[in-house]
Amino acid sequence: MQPAFKPEDYDVPAEYRHWPGDTAEDNIGPFFFYMDGPHPRTAFRPREEHSNTHRTIHGGILMTFADYTACLGASGGEQESSATISLNTEFVAPAHVGDLLLGEGEVLRRGHSLVFVRVKVYAKHRVVLAASAVIKRLRDRSEKK
Amino acid sequence: MQPAFKPEDYDVPAEYRHWPGDTAEDNIGPFFFYMDGPHPRTAFRPREEHSNTHRTIHGGILMTFADYTACLGASGGEQESSATISLNTEFVAPAHVGDLLLGEGEVLRRGHSLVFVRVKVYAKHRVVLAASAVIKRLRDRSEKK
Amino acid sequence: MQPAFKPEDYDVPAEYRHWPGDTAEDNIGPFFFYMDGPHPRTAFRPREEHSNTHRTIHGGILMTFADYTACLGASGGEQESSATISLNTEFVAPAHVGDLLLGEGEVLRRGHSLVFVRVKVYAKHRVVLAASAVIKRLRDRSEKK
Amino acid sequence: MQPAFKPEDYDVPAEYRHWPGDTAEDNIGPFFFYMDGPHPRTAFRPREEHSNTHRTIHGGILMTFADYTACLGASGGEQESSATISLNTEFVAPAHVGDLLLGEGEVLRRGHSLVFVRVKVYAKHRVVLAASAVIKRLRDRSEKK
Repeated sequence: MQPAFKPEDYDVPAEYRHWPGDTAEDNIGPFFFYMDGPHPRTAFRPREEHSNTHRTIHGGILMTFADYTACLGASGGEQESSATISLNTEFVAPAHVGDLLLGEGEVLRRGHSLVFVRVKVYAKHRVVLAASAVIKRLRDRSEKK
Repeated sequence: MQPAFKPEDYDVPAEYRHWPGDTAEDNIGPFFFYMDGPHPRTAFRPREEHSNTHRTIHGGILMTFADYTACLGASGGEQESSATISLNTEFVAPAHVGDLLLGEGEVLRRGHSLVFVRVKVYAKHRVVLAASAVIKRLRDRSEKK
Repeated sequence: MQPAFKPEDYDVPAEYRHWPGDTAEDNIGPFFFYMDGPHPRTAFRPREEHSNTHRTIHGGILMTFADYTACLGASGGEQESSATISLNTEFVAPAHVGDLLLGEGEVLRRGHSLVFVRVKVYAKHRVVLAASAVIKRLRDRSEKK
Repeated sequence: MQPAFKPEDYDVPAEYRHWPGDTAEDNIGPFFFYMDGPHPRTAFRPREEHSNTHRTIHGGILMTFADYTACLGASGGEQESSATISLNTEFVAPAHVGDLLLGEGEVLRRGHSLVFVRVKVYAKHRVVLAASAVIKRLRDRSEKK
């Protein structure tokens, strides 16, 4: 059982909540979210341990946060399983330790099997990362890729 | 000063070595590499903490490892600075806790300012991730993006 | 000298105009545009010759139209030169012969050297293609890639 | 019925052949191919009409040729139907009118439903374009995306 992560413990606004069950995301994050209809809104406050050689937030951390955001668009915030097929990212500007990172997912299409989601991540009202993902819904675990 | 990471402590073959100075990579990894001429060869042994809901290795971890591999192609394994502009990934197959992940970077072009690198990540001789990156060389830190 | 292409000859609304000088785009299109501030709005009416085996519009045609849209975001609709560095696309839904395709470019950042643009292409109010591009501005043709 | 395109009429080596049935590809190309086991090898000789403002080959043309190459990796060169889900491209170097463009597809995985293919396009022994694609096999046309 995962511990309950509270947004206030990570200086994240209280309207966001934790999506339990993903060990890697909890170790890298934790990340938080709420759903704006079908579209995920996510939040993350990066720390010193997330910084790279340039003292900015590592691209891998940002991509992990973008993937988290995209997958919530696929699952609709529910516990439906999904697997990312492709994730493309552009690193538009640097983010820094202590910035509140806000992710916006835009579900372009949620099909029977595939979901198309675009993501923007903001720091201080500026886009730092753009991403787009194709995600496979795994409603029936016996489905093959 | 970063601690010295030794490949044998992470069940990684001894021909790989650590690239010091990146806090996030050390926290997520550590990752290891050697250069095959201009082409990076990288290694990483993921642990329980890197797994997702499906008990496979989280895509964010794999992307971070791919980015590490691509950036070594840009820097040539030297301490030259670089910044990833774009990174595209396809998740070809799942990887598991304990697998030895081996990354192969292929430098397609190392220009004056931009470097184009493709990456494959293998687990058990099978491709698990394909990635391609555009990376900006930051030889003169005063250069603007 | 290119001939003048008129939107009404291609069943495209009159507020769009032609960007002269690109032989390939005129042969594949013609495509039309106007600028909504920094953001390009583009239009194209595909014909029988643009269809693939499935009798839908070929992905290559859609990508060419997306690239046209992205580059207008880089040039700001002026005659400034630019070169696409990367273009990523997701094919969200099919488009058909005779559909009015409408492109929306969103300039995320127009830097000194690089421009980041996202594109959506609509047919009948539905997204058919999502794309994102990194484009190099070539203000000084002596700049090396 | 499509006309039969012959490689020699387009200054393409005779070991390549035409894949019939795609109107857009024939209008933009024609393109030619042979299979090296599961991996497609493709050829195309661009003409004046394929050039952009810079007098180099338009990115849209190159992407169309890359998509053709990737889809042959999905179909195995047979008449099996497929639909591109995502295509990512990096424009590594310019190609010119009259160059013999040679495409190399590398099928990373051909699954039950999805195929992962990477592509390199060469001109004069130099990589001009790198691409990666996710393609859906449409063996049963009733399958939904």
